[in-house]
Amino acid sequence: MICAIALRFNSTKVVEMKIGFIGLGNMGKAMANVLLQKYPDLVVYNRTRSAADELEQAGAQVANSPIEVARQCEVVITMLSNDAVVEAVTLGDEGLSAGLAKDAIHISMSSISPNLSKQLAQHHAQAGQAYFAAPVFGRPDVAAKGNLWIVAGGNNDQIEHCRSILEAMSRGISIVSTDPSLANLVKITGNFTITAVMETLGETFALMQKSGIEPQAFLQVLNQVYQSPMYESYGTQIAQQRFDPALFALKLGLKDIRLVRQVADEADVPMPLVNLVYEHMLSAIAHGRAEQEWSSFAQVNAENAGLK
Amino acid sequence: MICAIALRFNSTKVVEMKIGFIGLGNMGKAMANVLLQKYPDLVVYNRTRSAADELEQAGAQVANSPIEVARQCEVVITMLSNDAVVEAVTLGDEGLSAGLAKDAIHISMSSISPNLSKQLAQHHAQAGQAYFAAPVFGRPDVAAKGNLWIVAGGNNDQIEHCRSILEAMSRGISIVSTDPSLANLVKITGNFTITAVMETLGETFALMQKSGIEPQAFLQVLNQVYQSPMYESYGTQIAQQRFDPALFALKLGLKDIRLVRQVADEADVPMPLVNLVYEHMLSAIAHGRAEQEWSSFAQVNAENAGLK
Amino acid sequence: MICAIALRFNSTKVVEMKIGFIGLGNMGKAMANVLLQKYPDLVVYNRTRSAADELEQAGAQVANSPIEVARQCEVVITMLSNDAVVEAVTLGDEGLSAGLAKDAIHISMSSISPNLSKQLAQHHAQAGQAYFAAPVFGRPDVAAKGNLWIVAGGNNDQIEHCRSILEAMSRGISIVSTDPSLANLVKITGNFTITAVMETLGETFALMQKSGIEPQAFLQVLNQVYQSPMYESYGTQIAQQRFDPALFALKLGLKDIRLVRQVADEADVPMPLVNLVYEHMLSAIAHGRAEQEWSSFAQVNAENAGLK
Amino acid sequence: MICAIALRFNSTKVVEMKIGFIGLGNMGKAMANVLLQKYPDLVVYNRTRSAADELEQAGAQVANSPIEVARQCEVVITMLSNDAVVEAVTLGDEGLSAGLAKDAIHISMSSISPNLSKQLAQHHAQAGQAYFAAPVFGRPDVAAKGNLWIVAGGNNDQIEHCRSILEAMSRGISIVSTDPSLANLVKITGNFTITAVMETLGETFALMQKSGIEPQAFLQVLNQVYQSPMYESYGTQIAQQRFDPALFALKLGLKDIRLVRQVADEADVPMPLVNLVYEHMLSAIAHGRAEQEWSSFAQVNAENAGLK
Repeated sequence: MICAIALRFNSTKVVEMKIGFIGLGNMGKAMANVLLQKYPDLVVYNRTRSAADELEQAGAQVANSPIEVARQCEVVITMLSNDAVVEAVTLGDEGLSAGLAKDAIHISMSSISPNLSKQLAQHHAQAGQAYFAAPVFGRPDVAAKGNLWIVAGGNNDQIEHCRSILEAMSRGISIVSTDPSLANLVKITGNFTITAVMETLGETFALMQKSGIEPQAFLQVLNQVYQSPMYESYGTQIAQQRFDPALFALKLGLKDIRLVRQVADEADVPMPLVNLVYEHMLSAIAHGRAEQEWSSFAQVNAENAGLK
Repeated sequence: MICAIALRFNSTKVVEMKIGFIGLGNMGKAMANVLLQKYPDLVVYNRTRSAADELEQAGAQVANSPIEVARQCEVVITMLSNDAVVEAVTLGDEGLSAGLAKDAIHISMSSISPNLSKQLAQHHAQAGQAYFAAPVFGRPDVAAKGNLWIVAGGNNDQIEHCRSILEAMSRGISIVSTDPSLANLVKITGNFTITAVMETLGETFALMQKSGIEPQAFLQVLNQVYQSPMYESYGTQIAQQRFDPALFALKLGLKDIRLVRQVADEADVPMPLVNLVYEHMLSAIAHGRAEQEWSSFAQVNAENAGLK
Repeated sequence: MICAIALRFNSTKVVEMKIGFIGLGNMGKAMANVLLQKYPDLVVYNRTRSAADELEQAGAQVANSPIEVARQCEVVITMLSNDAVVEAVTLGDEGLSAGLAKDAIHISMSSISPNLSKQLAQHHAQAGQAYFAAPVFGRPDVAAKGNLWIVAGGNNDQIEHCRSILEAMSRGISIVSTDPSLANLVKITGNFTITAVMETLGETFALMQKSGIEPQAFLQVLNQVYQSPMYESYGTQIAQQRFDPALFALKLGLKDIRLVRQVADEADVPMPLVNLVYEHMLSAIAHGRAEQEWSSFAQVNAENAGLK
Repeated sequence: MICAIALRFNSTKVVEMKIGFIGLGNMGKAMANVLLQKYPDLVVYNRTRSAADELEQAGAQVANSPIEVARQCEVVITMLSNDAVVEAVTLGDEGLSAGLAKDAIHISMSSISPNLSKQLAQHHAQAGQAYFAAPVFGRPDVAAKGNLWIVAGGNNDQIEHCRSILEAMSRGISIVSTDPSLANLVKITGNFTITAVMETLGETFALMQKSGIEPQAFLQVLNQVYQSPMYESYGTQIAQQRFDPALFALKLGLKDIRLVRQVADEADVPMPLVNLVYEHMLSAIAHGRAEQEWSSFAQVNAENAGLK
C-alpha cells in the first residue's frame, strides 16, 4: 500500500498523504476546508465546478472528475448527497475506483445505506483497493470547526492509518465494527434517535401551548434536564417554527428512516416509534414540507391538535 | 406575613426562616440534608420515624406530626410519594394546613397531579395561607449535591421570598407560570420526555443487538451525539439491564404517564408517543416489572424482537 | 314484585305489563314506536315535550316527569343521550327511582359507562328495586323495524321476566353476565370494533385513491369479502364522504372510546388500536368534525395522505 | 387468438377451451377440482407429482412441466405459493411463457406482488401472449364449493373471454382495473383489512377476558353485529386459540403486509394500522408463530396484557 511509506511528522497528528475529497455540498465544503489546513495538497472535486472556487482560492487543487482525483491520491473521501450519487461517482467508468491505485483507500463519509456500503466494500476488495465507512454526526457549523463525531467501520489497520485525517475533522471517533455497513447502520439509527426527540418535542409543545405554557418556556426546562445541544438546537427550531432554509431537508431525513425500517424488517425487530416518526414525516411531506428542515415534521403534532 | 421581617444575612443566599420538611424518602432525605446545612433550625417529619434518625443526628429537629411542623414554621416543604399522601398530610385534621399560620407558605415539591395542585392552591387560599408548586428534576444523588433543577409555579412574590431556600437545593429554578398546577404539568410532561428517550433506546438497542452491534457501543456514539447525562445514565441502565433496585419505580412512572394522558385528553391533543410508551409500560407491568426501575419498560422492545 | 302477577297471553311473546319509556331522541322514538304496537298502554316521557307528540297521536300516554312515569309502571326503560342525563333522570328528587315501586324494574338501554351502570345497580338494589342493563346495537332505521340486537346484563330472572318487551324491539338478545356493567362494557367495546372498521376503511381508501382505484370499487370487493351491513353502510358513508347530518355524532363516539380506554387502563390491557382510533378522533374534532357522523374521523387518513 | 374460435354451448356458462392449471396446493387443488367438473379436458401440473394423483383419478390429464401444460392449452391458470415460484414457473426456460401460443392467456390467480404482476404483464405482452390477474378471496373450503370471490385486473376483452372459467370457480367477479397489478393491490390490501379484524379481536378479547367476559360470548355479540363469515371464522380461531395447522401461515400473511407497506411508501400514504399489525406480526414470529395460522399474531395482544 502506497500509504505505508508515508512519513509521520509526529506520532499522533500529521501523516504526509495526498488526500482527495469529492462532494462539496454544505457539509463537504466545511469538512474540506478544515482538512485543507492540515493537508495543503488536498485535491477536491464537485460536479458543479463553482462549488470548488472558494477552496481553490484557499489553496486546494481542483480536479475535473472523480477518476482524476483518484489517480493522484492515496486516500479519497466521498461526502455526497445520496446512494445514487455515491454509486455513480465510485463505480462509473470515469469513477473513483477506476482511478484508485491498488491499496489506496476510499473513505465513505456520507450517510449511505448499509447495503450500498456492503457493495462498495466488495467492489473495492475485488479491485485490490481499501474501503471503510466513516459517517459523521454534526451539522455544517460543527463541521466548520472540525468538531464532528465520526463513526467508523472497517478494517482496523486502515482506519488507524487514516486516524490523523479523521481527527483533523472531528472531536473524536467511535470504531464500531470491522463491517463498514454497520457504521452506516449506526449513523442512520442515530439519526432516527434525533427524529424521536423531534417527535417528543412536537407532541409536548402542542400540549404545553394548549395548556397555557409557551413551548419556549418548556424548552428551557428541558435544556436544564438534558443539557444537550440536540434538544437546544432542534427544540429552538421547532418552538420558533424556523424550518427554512433547510440544513438537512425532511426528504433526506425520510430517506434515513426508510433505511432503518428496511434494516428492522430484515432483522425482525418491531420498531413502533420508527413507524410513528415515519408516518408523521409522510404526512408532513404530503403537506408540502419535503424541502424544509427535517424537524418540520414535528409540526404535524401541532396541526393534529388543531393549532395553527 | 411573618417571613416579611426575616433578616437577610447576605443579599442572595440566606434568609433567616424557620423551615419544615415533610417526607424523608430517597429524595426527601437528600434534599433535607442539603437544606439543613443552610438552615440548621430545620424541622423534619416522616410517618416512619426511623427515617428521620440520620437527620436528627445531624442536628435537625424531629416533629411528631405534620401539624406540629406547621405550627412552628413559616415555610413547610412537602416531598411525598403520591397524591393521596400529599392530600392526607396537607388536608387532614392533624394536617399541615390545620397548623400553618396565616401567610405561612406551603411549597409542594413532590410530583403531584395538576388537579391536586389546583385543589391545594384553593384550599390554602381559603385558609389565608400561601401555596406554590416547585417540583424537581434530578435523582437522589443529584439532590444530595444540591444540584436539582426546580420548576416553580405560583405567586411570584412568594416564590421570590423563598428563592434562597430553593437555591440551597438546586442549581437553578425555572418559574413557568403563576398557576401552580402548570408547574406540575411541566414536571410530568418532562418525565414523559424521559420515557420517550427510554423507548428510543429500547428500540434501537434491540436493532443493534440483532444486527451485530453491542448496545453499549451504540450508546457510546449517542453519548457523543447528545452529550447528555440523561442518555448516559438511562442508556447504561438499559444496555446493562440493571433495573433493580429501583430509584424510581415503573409503577410511579406509569402514574405520571397516566396524568399526561389525562391532561392531553382534556386539552384535545393527540399524543401517539405518549400512548406508545403507556402501552409498553402496561405490558412491562403485566410481566412483573412494576417495582423495577421505570426504564425497565424499554425491555419490552427487546422481548418483542425475540431477544432474551 | 308487581310484575309477578302479570298474565301471559302466550308462552313466548306478550306479557301484560305497564311499561314506561323515557328518552325520545332518534333511537328512543323508534324503539318506543315499535313497543307501542305490542304495549298500547305505553307511558312515555321526554324533557322536550314536543318530541312526544307523534307517539301521543299514535296512542301513547305522555307523562310530565320521570317520577310520574315511574309511579304507574312496573317496568321503565331509559334511552338517553349520556351518563349525566341518565343519572339526573334516575336519581334526582323527581327522578325515576323516587317513583318506582318496590320490585319494579329499570331497564337501562342507553350506552352508559360501566361505572354508572354499577352505581345505578347499587342504588336500585338499596331501594328494593330491580335494575338491569340492556344496551343495543343498531341505528334508528334498524330500531324502527324492531331489529336491534340487545346485550343484556343483570339478574337472569329479571331479564327473562322482561324478555317479551326486549323481543318486541329486537331480533335477538345476548345475555352476557349477571353484572349489568359488563353489558355496558360489551356495548362500548363493540362500538370500538366499529371504529376499527372505519379506521381500516379510511387508511385503505386513501391508499386505493392514490393508487388509481376508486374507494367505491374497493368497497364493492370488501362487501363481497365481508358480506356485512357494517362494512356496507359505513364504507358507503366514508367512500362518499357523507357525514352530515349525523346519526351518531363523532363526539359521542369519542365518549365511548374514552370509556374503553378507562376500562383498559383499570384492567391493565394495552390496546394500541384503541389509542390509534382515539388519536384520529381527537384530530378530527380539532378540525371541526365533532358534530359530524362518527365515521368522519376516518377522513383524517385521507388528509394525512395529502388528499383533498 | 385460438380461443376466438371456441364454441359456446350456452350463452353464459361453458366455453369449450383447453385449460391448464399449475399449482396444486390447498387452494389450487380445490379450485382445479371444481374446474374439472366443467372442463373435463383440464391439464394440471404440480412440482411434487403426487399432489396431482387425486385429480388424475378424477379424470384430469397430468403434465410433466409448465411448458408442457402451456403447449396444449389456450388458457393457463397459475395458483402458486409466492412470487419466486410464479416467476420461475412463468419465465424459466421450461416455463409457461416459453410454451404458450401467441394470443393464449395466462391467468395469474395467486396473491403475488403488484410489481411482479407488472413484470409478467410486460413479459407476456412482448411475447404476444395475453395476461391478466385474477386473485381470489376465500379459503380452501370455499374454493372447494366454487364460491370464491375473484378480483380481476387486465384487458377487459380477455377477462370476458374467460368469464365462464372464472365463474366456474367463484360466486362472482369484481373487475377493478385494466392494470393487472391493481387487482393484486386490491387483493393484498383486502388481506390487510382481514388482519385489522384480527388485531381488533385480539385486543378486545384480551379486554373481555380480564374484565370477566368470555371471548366466545363477546364474539357471539359481534357475530350479530357484523353478520359476517370473516368475524365468525377468524373470531372462532382466535377465541379458541386454534392456530394449527395453518390454512394460511403467518409468514405468508406478513409477506402481504410487507407489500402493502411498500405500496403505501411509494404512494406516500401513512397507514398506522398497517404498521401496528406489522409490528405485532413481527413479534409473533419472533416468538415462534411463523408457521401457525396468520390470525395467531392477534395473541400478541393477550400476551402483552399478561394473559397466558
